[in-house]
Amino acid sequence: MGVAPQRRFAIGVDYGTSSVRALVVDIDDGAEIGTHVAPYRSGEDGVLIDPADPQLARQNPADYIQGFYEAVGRAVGAAADEPGFAPDKVVGIGIDTTGSTPIPVDRDGMPLALHDKLADDLAAHAWLWKDHTSWAEANEITEAARRHPHDYLSKCGGTYSSEWYWAKILHCKRSAPQVFAAAHGWVELADFVPAFITGNTDPATLARGICAAGHKAMYNESWGGLPAADFLASLDPELAPLRERFASPALTADRQAGKLIPEVAGKVGLPPGIPVAVGAFDAHMGGVGAGIKPGTLVKIIGTSTCDMMVAPLSEELPDIPGLCGIVAGSIIPGMYGLEAGQSAVGDIFNWFASRLAPAELAGGGDAHAGLTAAAAALRPGESGLLALDWNNGNRTILVDPMLTGLLIGQTLHTTAAEIYRALVEATAFGALTIINRFEEYGVAVQEVVNCGGIAEKNPFVMQIYADVCNRPMKISRSTQTCALGAAIFGAVAAGAHEDVAAAQAKMTRIKDTFYEPRPEAARTYADLYILYRKLHDAFGGAGADAGGGAVRAPGAPGAAGSPAADTSMASVMKDLIGIRDRVRRAGGMSG
Amino acid sequence: MGVAPQRRFAIGVDYGTSSVRALVVDIDDGAEIGTHVAPYRSGEDGVLIDPADPQLARQNPADYIQGFYEAVGRAVGAAADEPGFAPDKVVGIGIDTTGSTPIPVDRDGMPLALHDKLADDLAAHAWLWKDHTSWAEANEITEAARRHPHDYLSKCGGTYSSEWYWAKILHCKRSAPQVFAAAHGWVELADFVPAFITGNTDPATLARGICAAGHKAMYNESWGGLPAADFLASLDPELAPLRERFASPALTADRQAGKLIPEVAGKVGLPPGIPVAVGAFDAHMGGVGAGIKPGTLVKIIGTSTCDMMVAPLSEELPDIPGLCGIVAGSIIPGMYGLEAGQSAVGDIFNWFASRLAPAELAGGGDAHAGLTAAAAALRPGESGLLALDWNNGNRTILVDPMLTGLLIGQTLHTTAAEIYRALVEATAFGALTIINRFEEYGVAVQEVVNCGGIAEKNPFVMQIYADVCNRPMKISRSTQTCALGAAIFGAVAAGAHEDVAAAQAKMTRIKDTFYEPRPEAARTYADLYILYRKLHDAFGGAGADAGGGAVRAPGAPGAAGSPAADTSMASVMKDLIGIRDRVRRAGGMSG
Repeated sequence: MGVAPQRRFAIGVDYGTSSVRALVVDIDDGAEIGTHVAPYRSGEDGVLIDPADPQLARQNPADYIQGFYEAVGRAVGAAADEPGFAPDKVVGIGIDTTGSTPIPVDRDGMPLALHDKLADDLAAHAWLWKDHTSWAEANEITEAARRHPHDYLSKCGGTYSSEWYWAKILHCKRSAPQVFAAAHGWVELADFVPAFITGNTDPATLARGICAAGHKAMYNESWGGLPAADFLASLDPELAPLRERFASPALTADRQAGKLIPEVAGKVGLPPGIPVAVGAFDAHMGGVGAGIKPGTLVKIIGTSTCDMMVAPLSEELPDIPGLCGIVAGSIIPGMYGLEAGQSAVGDIFNWFASRLAPAELAGGGDAHAGLTAAAAALRPGESGLLALDWNNGNRTILVDPMLTGLLIGQTLHTTAAEIYRALVEATAFGALTIINRFEEYGVAVQEVVNCGGIAEKNPFVMQIYADVCNRPMKISRSTQTCALGAAIFGAVAAGAHEDVAAAQAKMTRIKDTFYEPRPEAARTYADLYILYRKLHDAFGGAGADAGGGAVRAPGAPGAAGSPAADTSMASVMKDLIGIRDRVRRAGGMSG
Repeated sequence: MGVAPQRRFAIGVDYGTSSVRALVVDIDDGAEIGTHVAPYRSGEDGVLIDPADPQLARQNPADYIQGFYEAVGRAVGAAADEPGFAPDKVVGIGIDTTGSTPIPVDRDGMPLALHDKLADDLAAHAWLWKDHTSWAEANEITEAARRHPHDYLSKCGGTYSSEWYWAKILHCKRSAPQVFAAAHGWVELADFVPAFITGNTDPATLARGICAAGHKAMYNESWGGLPAADFLASLDPELAPLRERFASPALTADRQAGKLIPEVAGKVGLPPGIPVAVGAFDAHMGGVGAGIKPGTLVKIIGTSTCDMMVAPLSEELPDIPGLCGIVAGSIIPGMYGLEAGQSAVGDIFNWFASRLAPAELAGGGDAHAGLTAAAAALRPGESGLLALDWNNGNRTILVDPMLTGLLIGQTLHTTAAEIYRALVEATAFGALTIINRFEEYGVAVQEVVNCGGIAEKNPFVMQIYADVCNRPMKISRSTQTCALGAAIFGAVAAGAHEDVAAAQAKMTRIKDTFYEPRPEAARTYADLYILYRKLHDAFGGAGADAGGGAVRAPGAPGAAGSPAADTSMASVMKDLIGIRDRVRRAGGMSG
């Protein structure tokens, strides 16, 4: 009888918008052997809101600490039954979080909101990624950056977002000066958690991740890290000193932030001293957990999407207009991380199902089920409807949160299911627009791997994505790719795998079954995409700003776009009717 | 004790889409003393349909005859209790009907559908106004008329409609040649009923009303009545002979078609010999019943609208692009009748309420009530939504049945009530576009009188119309203006009143209370109308075809349109948000 090989494990900790999940993973085969989700205790589903200002979204930093103890402690407890598991077999811990979610901290690096006197001040809490109170400051930063000799926005799509680090800090300075004055520094949640559990929370020295810094804080080594002090001072003189309390260089997530300190280890049933990786954003670690590599587009599809690619640093890579970010090392060390996204996908379906589903479809309580069944019975194009997927703005390629939805083609016979399907199709057209943008700038998309709730549970949506994009849609095996990715970085930072690619080879996989495009549907959608793109460019003002993307549909017959696109809207309704009538005459497959 | 003056009565008979109504009216004070509604017995709500072709809508001519007997007989019976009423006090009968609703008839003028061998042939029945099977022929007629030296379409908006007389006949020739061959002539329902009850049904000699002939059959005395034989022959050689079986000149409705024959009189409890007026369309007689006169726009607002004005023949009147018709004598003898309309108004509200109202609003069974209550609590502009009212195409000013709906401005927070309100506002913007078109061509709109179901029962909608149009919205006293107008023509044709104006002075009135525009709402709507018109012109292709109507809002501040309209769509969503934010900041009155 031989000796069974020693099993080894890593823990990934994934901070979402409403809860934190911990996942214990076998680093040699990716088996997920213990998990626990701890909901945040404060606010509405974990979010502190202000009834007077729907753009405000904050979180209580105490929930992050409490959530770590609860999620990791219980996940370790859940793993205890697994043969071969023991707490001392955990080789590393990785952390991913939402972002940009900056937290104002005191001289010790502890969140200001933990001080009694600021506990009731919403500005002293964490500024959650989806807080949009800083839209005016975002515009101001965009304008200032465009005037500055350094092209600080060239790596983040050309437009600074109200969701991002400096806009939030600047808005705090103006709207809550008492908090700004009390803040010794501002720390991204992705950096705060590793700092806290490794015991180095000093904002001037704690490990800053390249992912948050590069994508949200205009950090780039080509201009010396954060933007120059004179630039920050031009926004507000008091911003410049923050630059000195931000350790440089920012680090990739295969590096260690430190080692688990006894005070924390004791609370979660682990031995102290376990290496903790530098933190990164949930989506990026999710990309790694889904198996991202050059040529592979990973889409995380949930309420919104994150669309990621990587490209070797050795390759010449142009700035790509409209992408949220191009940052060396942000996803995989040694590669450019390219990030795009759609501001709302599942959120649009949820909006429609909760607000506009008629009683007969919503009767069973789940309007999605009724709408999906009815929508799946329709043929592509037969409704005559077309929508834009901008109910929450457009992140890529227009980078404009103030865009809104559009639906065209309604008649007196239009049904709720037809509109639901048109909204699903609209998000698929948005997905195709992102794929096209990558390829227009030389980043070939050889495969698409999907993960997230919609990818896992919604074959109706995924088939439409396959048909619209005219590409197979593959699905990640893990349903927790973010936490899995964090575990991968925990393992790599600990030295248990040589690099991310080696860890991915062991720990990630795609499902055997995936969605193949259907040629007839793809042909119809290619025609509809020309109209989508026409509306997109006209209402999004894409003609000049968003680069050279002429109307472009994947290789389906009859879909060749013209570089000199017809900008007249006069034919759109008729063209939709033409497609509708052609489809209805032809009959054929639904779905 | 003096002798009470003798009372005198007229009967108006109103053929609608689902039923026929008879109304017994005192011709000296307009009192409505007896009425009865007889539903048609055939089809779905009186309409014969073809499941394979949603554009088909026919009616059984037997229902018209049976309906006359039942409605008039029972209305006379209902009037019997009124002091001073007796059947021999009925001085005249007037008839109004839907149209264009042509009926193929035999050599005796009787409908072909009454023959057993054609009873099952849908083409042998009446071709109801809303039958759109003839769209291809309508396009063909439009093209042919534009090539012809006579500008046959100059009096009907420049485009021939699939709803109209010649398109339907031509489509019958092609799609049902057996029926075409059997038809000795084609008679409008408005002409058939007077012909039938007066005993002259010969298509070559029966009284043809100028209303149907002028608005639907391109009849105009300036080119000798119907279009020339060569023109008809160019469409199809067999159309030309129909011209000879169409009595000329066509007559105004103050003329007598004949006198009630004993066979009919006996069935309805009236003496024979009562004068019967030449028939006309329901909307036109409704305009008369609502008190139409120069300067007064009458809007009949129901599932769709008819918008009518009159202008003295002595005035110079240009052709007005986009109007459905300008026909001398079609509404009031001695005046031009000008007709415009919206293809769907109540139909759009019904569509939304039945298809897209969520359960919590539709719970009580009447989604309109819940939607209206919630929508009325909103302030103009605060939803950020804007819609086009084209779910059933656009009749005026674009004359294009193939246009479709559009909704813009949706976010993830948009509610069903907000959309419902946006649809109501869209129809109001459509109404304003018609008012503007009249005025652009020198026909001053001094007052607006509304009638029809929505005008009578929906203060929410009417207040929005007042605010959007920035004009008082007055309401007709009678709730049966079509039947009342028919009774007026019955009285005038009988010589009991000198002319229509004299009869109107006695028999019509508006309600004391009406809807006044609210300045703040009017200002917001003036800004929204600029955006509506921008979408309208872009998606409707109005730039060239529909005449010189630049963006134009009523005299509200800040609403001045530019003749060189900005055709870019890029700012529309932002402009809506700008209006939304301004309204939300200002607070103020809802409704």
